[in-house]
Formats: sequence, structure tokens, C-alpha cells
Amino acid sequence: MSQPTVSPAPFRAIDLIRKKRDGGVLSAAEIGYLIEGCTDGTIPDYQMSAWLMAVVLRGMTREETAALTNSMLRSGEVLDLSFLPAPRVDKHSTGGVGDKTSLVLAPLVAAAGLYVPMISGRGLGHTGGTLDKLESIPGFRVGLSVPEFHRVLKACGACMIGQTEKIAPADRKLYALRDVTGTVESPYLICASIMSKKLAEGTDALVLDVKTGSGAFMKKEEDAIFLAELMVETGERMGKKMAALITDMNQPLGCTVGNALEVEECIAILHGGGPADLRDLCIELAGWMLFLGGTAETVEKGKRKSEQIIASGQAFHRFRQMVELQGGDISVIDDPTRLPSTEHRVEVLSSRAGYVSSILCEQIGTACVILGGGRERKEDSVDPAVGIVVHKKIGDEVSAGESLATIHCHSDAQAARASKLVEESYQIATGASVVKPTLVHRVIYKGEY
Amino acid sequence: MSQPTVSPAPFRAIDLIRKKRDGGVLSAAEIGYLIEGCTDGTIPDYQMSAWLMAVVLRGMTREETAALTNSMLRSGEVLDLSFLPAPRVDKHSTGGVGDKTSLVLAPLVAAAGLYVPMISGRGLGHTGGTLDKLESIPGFRVGLSVPEFHRVLKACGACMIGQTEKIAPADRKLYALRDVTGTVESPYLICASIMSKKLAEGTDALVLDVKTGSGAFMKKEEDAIFLAELMVETGERMGKKMAALITDMNQPLGCTVGNALEVEECIAILHGGGPADLRDLCIELAGWMLFLGGTAETVEKGKRKSEQIIASGQAFHRFRQMVELQGGDISVIDDPTRLPSTEHRVEVLSSRAGYVSSILCEQIGTACVILGGGRERKEDSVDPAVGIVVHKKIGDEVSAGESLATIHCHSDAQAARASKLVEESYQIATGASVVKPTLVHRVIYKGEY
Repeated sequence: MSQPTVSPAPFRAIDLIRKKRDGGVLSAAEIGYLIEGCTDGTIPDYQMSAWLMAVVLRGMTREETAALTNSMLRSGEVLDLSFLPAPRVDKHSTGGVGDKTSLVLAPLVAAAGLYVPMISGRGLGHTGGTLDKLESIPGFRVGLSVPEFHRVLKACGACMIGQTEKIAPADRKLYALRDVTGTVESPYLICASIMSKKLAEGTDALVLDVKTGSGAFMKKEEDAIFLAELMVETGERMGKKMAALITDMNQPLGCTVGNALEVEECIAILHGGGPADLRDLCIELAGWMLFLGGTAETVEKGKRKSEQIIASGQAFHRFRQMVELQGGDISVIDDPTRLPSTEHRVEVLSSRAGYVSSILCEQIGTACVILGGGRERKEDSVDPAVGIVVHKKIGDEVSAGESLATIHCHSDAQAARASKLVEESYQIATGASVVKPTLVHRVIYKGEY
Repeated sequence: MSQPTVSPAPFRAIDLIRKKRDGGVLSAAEIGYLIEGCTDGTIPDYQMSAWLMAVVLRGMTREETAALTNSMLRSGEVLDLSFLPAPRVDKHSTGGVGDKTSLVLAPLVAAAGLYVPMISGRGLGHTGGTLDKLESIPGFRVGLSVPEFHRVLKACGACMIGQTEKIAPADRKLYALRDVTGTVESPYLICASIMSKKLAEGTDALVLDVKTGSGAFMKKEEDAIFLAELMVETGERMGKKMAALITDMNQPLGCTVGNALEVEECIAILHGGGPADLRDLCIELAGWMLFLGGTAETVEKGKRKSEQIIASGQAFHRFRQMVELQGGDISVIDDPTRLPSTEHRVEVLSSRAGYVSSILCEQIGTACVILGGGRERKEDSVDPAVGIVVHKKIGDEVSAGESLATIHCHSDAQAARASKLVEESYQIATGASVVKPTLVHRVIYKGEY
């Protein structure tokens, strides 16, 4: 286990590990050396994981976080979208249960005249992923080449694809290592991972939707705020317009959890319907995207414009156009009952009367994973048809024997565990004093809006 | 980079890494799982190094340290020396410059009727190693088999060998990993590494010589005390009689640094001569070994007895006998001028008159390594003949142009860098107010002595 032989290097990994271990601050060159060495394999995993653990426990300065983000970004390809005639703007969510706003936002913001070059991820753990949702549309291709990506963007203003091999390879390698070495949970590493990928998209502005609550990765609001501020500052240091909303994830967003079910709900939103909380958050985020992208003077004006675009049918039209350009079967967009679905339904009934006082939201996400609608491991495949439709949300009145949620599944046996998890996730209180959660807890933006 | 597939295990490495990362306390079973998995390779290095870094930064309880020591001890063979008719006692030093007491103590304590089954190490970094010193005696074999070790011990009461492959293999593997991942510097890990090897010797009692000062690994006295207390408690938990002396390493011990030069100095001590500080420390440590081994009622009586054993010639006789039994050429023991030596000498002169106020002791050790008398890397070979003879120690008066030290080398060119390092390590003050360092700073022992 000797230091691998490399051509004369400006630094030694061991010295940089020790420096961080002792609470020191690494220079951009030192961080760059580590990330390059990790990516090309000259620095072995056992040294990187020791360094990562030191970062988790010692933290990083804002400068170090920006340097790490930049090194990871520069480890791969950075898309150049300057050929597009209007600003590029994107949204990133830290992940939640029933969190499906991307499918609404991309066509909506594109219809407002901006470009949305969205590179998304797959579901992991209790949260869903945009790519899995899109793939419940038969034929939809998320693996476009860069020229195809350019063509779709140019044609309809929005394109939604998966991360390519060429984007931030350092992040792919580091993330795999973090996943097995207990070094995922660091705001600095999370920030660099998210921002390196998002900045590689070549956007001008980015709106962050940082989730907090029982269904979010960051259960505590102060952790969500800390991460949001870190990401906003990191993006600004790299010349991007940034804003973050801290939003509620104490219950599923909207009413559906599960891939095809969520696409169906998004189509309802694009038609001007759908559940209020999902619609409100889409309008809020779209307002910010239009504001940062420069097509609305204020966020409020951006929101009004977004509402009009939905009402006019233009947002739906853009979505349909994007699906078609990406190879998807538009007959299911026109008739969502043709989306993959299950024959079987199991109702989750309330054993008592009262008001929903809280929901263990992560448990609802886990129930969907157990049904086959999500992944426990990266290599798992996903069943697009299964899922959960939630009928009762926090503050809603419920009578004994009334349905709290419907499980979409293939058999009673398959639903047993998921059904129990959903049932147990509901807390029913007798009084009507329950306060419905506020959707947007806080805005992080330096300036007037 | 997925978790390696293993047969159903009681724990998952990732959970134990996270637990320690979050400041939790691991059970003996959990620690045992990690050490076993590290030793048999089922837990990959990148997980172990993340865990090691978490231990460095989060620490361990006394119970965890004992469990770690025990797991590492049990990873290999534990010698059974119960066939010997008297107690087994050993000494361990944390390493220093010119630290050669083992060569005196083993035969001295054996001559007092105890058994000294000493498993020693090689020099690394700026400190020397007992095995390298012994190997400057032509023919001396440190790689005895266990039956040979038993035979020598039985015949002369002392035997000095190197660590075998079978003793604490977990330590060998972990140490190699710690060396390249910045996880050496943890008292808990140092304690477990030292104690697992020392307890494998099958001794009943152990005296620790924990060095502090400019030539020690622990520069700060509080760090030395912390480690010493940890090791004493760990040994006691495992049923051993334990004591630790915190001793001074602000200047070389004795006057010689270099393998053959140090053997020569030990022979002088065994003949009743040699430098006062080295003699005093040998008597002090021997007193403790005799006391813990039960052949002296008090440490003071043990010291008097040790002095008598040296004066009677018995200690020297035992040394000669041990060398002979281990294949060494006793003609060099009888006539130390026949030990390997260099033709060439370079004097390091003082540029000014005054008193030696301090010595950068680590730098003297490094000078010896540069001459070829030590190792920068494990695989380096060692020149037994080279070294440094120190003429002036802290508090000594020196005139301008007087020799501070003599470099034993093969040419002026070879000595250039070492000579400069030695010269620069000396601080000369004008006043005579310099206080000579106290040899034994503190004793750590629970009871009367």
C-alpha cells in the first residue's frame, strides 16, 4: 500500500489529507490536484475517502467549496449554449416525494421565451427522479446526444435529458465513493456535486428548490437554509444568477407518487387543473425563473405571466412538442388514461375520525419504492405504473373508514407492506387546530424581487 | 464501487463508518467486525480509511480502544510463554533519537531472573530501530522461528526478534493504510497498534517509555501523557501489569546516533561506563521492570539491584550470550572497535561561544537518515557504520570553534547536508542560565512504588 508512482506532482495527497484533517484551508490548486487525481485514478480511493471524511468533519470555506465545484465542473465537458438567442435558465430540486415540478416548469418557462436545458437524475432512495417519470411516456428518450439536445432546445425551448458520461466525471466517481464511505452528508460536498453538474449545462440562471421536512433529505430547516445559501453563493461566484426557495416537504407534493401517476398530474397542471399546492409551487418557481432569466421585471410579474401561459394552453403545447421531439408517444399526452397503469387498487382506510396532523412523508416515498416505483439500488429497474394517490393531506378532515390513499399495484399481496407503511405514516388528531404547512418557507436571494 | 458481496454479515461497514462519523460509540462486536473484514479483505480499503479518519477526528472511548486492541491482537498468533519458570516482562519505547535502552535492558533484566521476550521494530523516519542496531553486529539474526525464540529465551532469559507475519496481521494492514491516509496521528490508533503487538508477546508486565520533546513523535507533553495513560489502562484491562514513564527527548539519548555507534555505547553501559543520561534511564527502566516483574519490592530496590548486576558483569555476560545464541559474532562484542565503522570523520564546529540552550533533536535524527543510517521508506536499506557522535548536550559550555558533534561518514560530500542540519539544530546562548532537562518527566502507575 505505497503511494502510487506518478510523475513529479506539485502536491502529495497525504499532505492535503493531513491539512484538511487538522482543519486547514486548501487552495484552489490543491483541491484541483485532488479532483484531477481522483478522476484519472492516480490518487487511490482510500486516500480520497480519508480526505472526504476529513471534509465532512472539518468543513470547508466558501472559497474551498467554489474551488471544489469548479474543479469538478472542469473535469468534464461544459455545454456551450451561447448560440441560443435568449437566456438559459434552469431549476434544481434537492429531491422529495411527489416532487414533479420539472415536467411543468421546462415547457412553461420555454413558452415564456427562455431556454431550459435540463439535465436531470433518476430516483434514488425514497425520492423519485425526473428521468424515471419521463420514461413512463412510451418512447421518450432521455439519452440524447449533444447535437440532438441542441436541436430539441432550439426547436421548442426545452429539453430534458440524463447526465452524460462527459459531464462532471469527477462527480460520478466521487459520488460512488461517498455513497459507500459515509461521506454523503456534507453540505459542502452536496453543493459541489449539484452545482458542478448544473453549471455544466451552460445556463445563465438557476433557481434552487431546497426541500425541508419529513420527506426531504434535509429534515431540519437550518440545514436546508445552510445548503441553499452555500449553493447560491457558489453559483454567484461562478457568474450565474441564483436564487433559492426553501420549500415544504412534510407531505407529498400534489396527490400522486409514482412515475406515470405523476406525469398524469403534470398534464392536469398544464391544462390549468391539478392540486393547488403543486400548481402554486410551479407558478412560484416559474415566476423566479422568468425573473432571473430577465423576461419578468419582478417575481410577481413572472408568476402572473406563468399563469397566463398555462391558461392559454401554450405550456401544454410546448410539453407535447418536447415529448414528440424526444421520441415520446404523444397519444398518451393527449389521452393520459393511456399511460401505463395497474388493474388493481388497494384503499388505505383511516381507522379513526379527525384531522390529519402530520404525515411521515419519507415513508410514503419508501412505500412507492417497495411497490417497484423507485430504486433501492442504482441498478434496480422501475415499474412506471405503480404508485400511490394521496386523498388526504395535512389539515384535512377524515372520517373513520374513509380512504386516506389509494395504492396502485398489481395484487393485494404486493400492496401489503406499502399499504401498512402509508397507513402508519398518517397521524390523525381529534381537534381541528391543525395548521396547514406553508409551501415556501423562505427565499434566499440577494436583492429586490 | 458497490459494497462487496459477502455472506450475511451481522453489520454493514457503511453503518459503522456513519456511527463513528456522528460521534457514536462502537461495540466490541462492531469493532471486531471491522478489523476482521479489514484483515481478510472483505471490507475494502476505502471504507477502512474513511472509518480511520472518523476515529482520528471523533476519538474513541477507553472501552472502544481496548476492543480495538483486542481485535487486532486476536487477528494473529499470541505467544504462549507460560512454560518459562519466571515472569515475562518487556519495555516499549515510542521512539526517539539515540534511544538504545532495549539493548541494555533485555540482558540486564534477564540477569535479574526475569524473562524478556522482546519483539522490536525497525527505524522509520527520524527515529532509529532496535532491529537495525542489532543487525550491525555481523551475523546477528532477528528473524528467528518461534521454536528458536523459545530456545534462546530459555537459555539466556532474553531474546530480541522482529515482528513475525503471524503477529497482529490486522495491525500490519491497518498501519500501511494509516501511513498513506493521514490517519497515523491518533492516540487511540497508536495505542491499539503498539499494545496489540506487545500483548502478542505473551508478557505479564510492560513498562512504557513514552518520549516527549523535539525528537519525539509527541512534541507536546500533554499528548505523551494522554497516550501513556491510554496504553496503561488498555494493558491493565487485558490483565497486564503496566507502568509508563514520560521521558525527555529534547536531545539525543546518550552521545551516539547511528546503528553500530549505538551498539558500542550500549556495550560501554553494560561495562559500567557510558554517558550518564543513558545509564540513568536504563537503570530507571530496569528498576521498573524488576518491580513489575516481582523480583524487587520497590522500584528503588529494583534500581539498586540493576546497578549491582551491571557492576558484577552479569548484564554484559547475558548480552554476549544472547548475541552468540542469535548467531552474532561475539568477537565484536568483546572488541567493539571491530564493529562496522567509517574511515572518514567530519567535525561540526560551533561558530560561537556560550552554552547549548536547545537542540532540534528531530533534525539530528534526520541527519542520520540522510547519511544512510536510517530509512525514509520501509524498503530502504541501512548503512550500519554511519552516524553522529554528539559531544555537547543541553547546558554544556562550548567555545567558538569547538566541536559540537562528529559525523561518521564515507566522504566530506556525503556529510555536507547532515553536517549543516546538525549545526543548525544547536542553539547557543550566551548566559549560563540554561537548565538541563529532567530525564523522567512523570510516572504513570496506579499504586505505590
